Amino acid sequence: MITRQSIIDAHERIRPYVHRTPVITSQSIDDIAGCKIFFKCENLQKVGAFKARGAMNAALSLSEEERKKGIATHSSGNHAQAIARAGKVLGVKSYIVMPRTAPAIKKKGVQGYGGEIFECEPTLEARESTLADVIKKTGAHEIHPFNNYDVITGQATTAKELFEEQNNLDVIIAPVGGGGLLSGTAMATKYFSPSTLVYAAEPEGADDAYRAMQSGKIEKSQANSIADGLLTALGEKNFPIIKENVKAVITVSDQEIIEAMRLIWERMKLIVEPSGAVPLAAVLKSKEEFAGKKVGVIFSGGNVDLEKVTKLFIQ
Amino acid sequence: MITRQSIIDAHERIRPYVHRTPVITSQSIDDIAGCKIFFKCENLQKVGAFKARGAMNAALSLSEEERKKGIATHSSGNHAQAIARAGKVLGVKSYIVMPRTAPAIKKKGVQGYGGEIFECEPTLEARESTLADVIKKTGAHEIHPFNNYDVITGQATTAKELFEEQNNLDVIIAPVGGGGLLSGTAMATKYFSPSTLVYAAEPEGADDAYRAMQSGKIEKSQANSIADGLLTALGEKNFPIIKENVKAVITVSDQEIIEAMRLIWERMKLIVEPSGAVPLAAVLKSKEEFAGKKVGVIFSGGNVDLEKVTKLFIQ
Repeated sequence: MITRQSIIDAHERIRPYVHRTPVITSQSIDDIAGCKIFFKCENLQKVGAFKARGAMNAALSLSEEERKKGIATHSSGNHAQAIARAGKVLGVKSYIVMPRTAPAIKKKGVQGYGGEIFECEPTLEARESTLADVIKKTGAHEIHPFNNYDVITGQATTAKELFEEQNNLDVIIAPVGGGGLLSGTAMATKYFSPSTLVYAAEPEGADDAYRAMQSGKIEKSQANSIADGLLTALGEKNFPIIKENVKAVITVSDQEIIEAMRLIWERMKLIVEPSGAVPLAAVLKSKEEFAGKKVGVIFSGGNVDLEKVTKLFIQ
Repeated sequence: MITRQSIIDAHERIRPYVHRTPVITSQSIDDIAGCKIFFKCENLQKVGAFKARGAMNAALSLSEEERKKGIATHSSGNHAQAIARAGKVLGVKSYIVMPRTAPAIKKKGVQGYGGEIFECEPTLEARESTLADVIKKTGAHEIHPFNNYDVITGQATTAKELFEEQNNLDVIIAPVGGGGLLSGTAMATKYFSPSTLVYAAEPEGADDAYRAMQSGKIEKSQANSIADGLLTALGEKNFPIIKENVKAVITVSDQEIIEAMRLIWERMKLIVEPSGAVPLAAVLKSKEEFAGKKVGVIFSGGNVDLEKVTKLFIQ
């Protein structure tokens, strides 16, 4: 399904519509971590997250016939904005089902791109049934946030770019929620940097990927963490790729996520959202594992409600 | 004093010790501002501010004999860290006179580089007399934060790099405190992009540069603004350069600075300090003046006390 060439094609396809984000280093964080880290800054991506890549690739991969009635999805956040923006760029309508608990900044972002929001209860069941209604009514084409090969292939371009700038990474580490970024990262690593080991980082309060790697089957998520982008369980298309290509899943507590996030804000002057700080939290928790290595870390996004997140810093 | 060649030489001299910082654009801020802005991200510079450039150039321009007893300065913040870091890089002692009111993060930064801090009252007189004592006692060489041609030449490399990436800017705009960055920017513009107009941006509560441009002589600063890096009056070496080469000084209120800063944090996912947000505040205040133009904006620094600044966002 996902080949070396399909990732190269996706990269060409989305290039006019997304940023090639910078790779940034920090001597002071390297000193703390005891390894050499290359941060791929998808928080500086369009819509503030890597999700712009997968959504754009999936929308561009539809035929004109398929997308003319619009595109639709359910998402708690960054994928929602990414689909709304893809709709705007392609001149088609976008319909977004969002849990009513989603951060205000993410709802505002969707509306700013002209997306139409349908609110629902914050459960997977409510999201899926609301989306089914919307699609029935509008005839829009669904683009799933992660359980979609075109989305995964789009996300894979993040790691591809990182390898183009740093071709000798020992390790690459991505956060895992539904597994779109992680499975894309795993495929890009397989094709473009096969000697690099792939790790995942996950909140303890939503450690379904960690448990799935033990049990060998998809597990439910407790969905209890400050990292609101990582609460969903793995997708059926994502898990087999992860199972085969990911060395380990490292779990971290919310306190460790907040500390890593604060370190990034203070030392790197970059705003990452809690989900985006999870990989650095994992590196700092597993210093022996990464000691002296060259480590690629993906900052997945930077969309935060400033009021909410900055309260964590004032205690 | 400052020639095209001296800026080129300074750039070569400091290159191994400073970042070539990224130039970042933001579609959503362009839409708000009504012009095309290229942000030179010195908040991502070593020590979190452009000051790393001038300090490094001045320290490297000293003879070994001159610097062997150490380097010294008085500074409320970023120049302090920059001198401490230059001392560490060159293996000499650094002595920093700081007002006791300086942000904790800036004091911590100085100590992290091994700089020795001497606290004083937050007045120019106290700073100068304390520094004189320190120099008498240690034999260290003073490197002034802005009233020093090697420092100005180092700061000029910021605009030089921006012009290398964007050679057709209509306007470049820098914040002004003592005038080190602004006079360096003016000289770089004169030599490397002479058709570009140079503007300055200044807090209303410290508008000595604005008044100096009217009166034709250096004025005292009221030193009353949230932009704690811009409270000093212009230096004697800086003012003549500014007078000759800067088209206008735009002043902005603290409220406008906070709004611009929030916009940068939210839309660009970049942490800039209040002083660093002053140029964007000026662009947003003078939209007619810059409408449709290509504008270079220097984000001068990103060192904030998170507790203090984030309180501004929770009201």
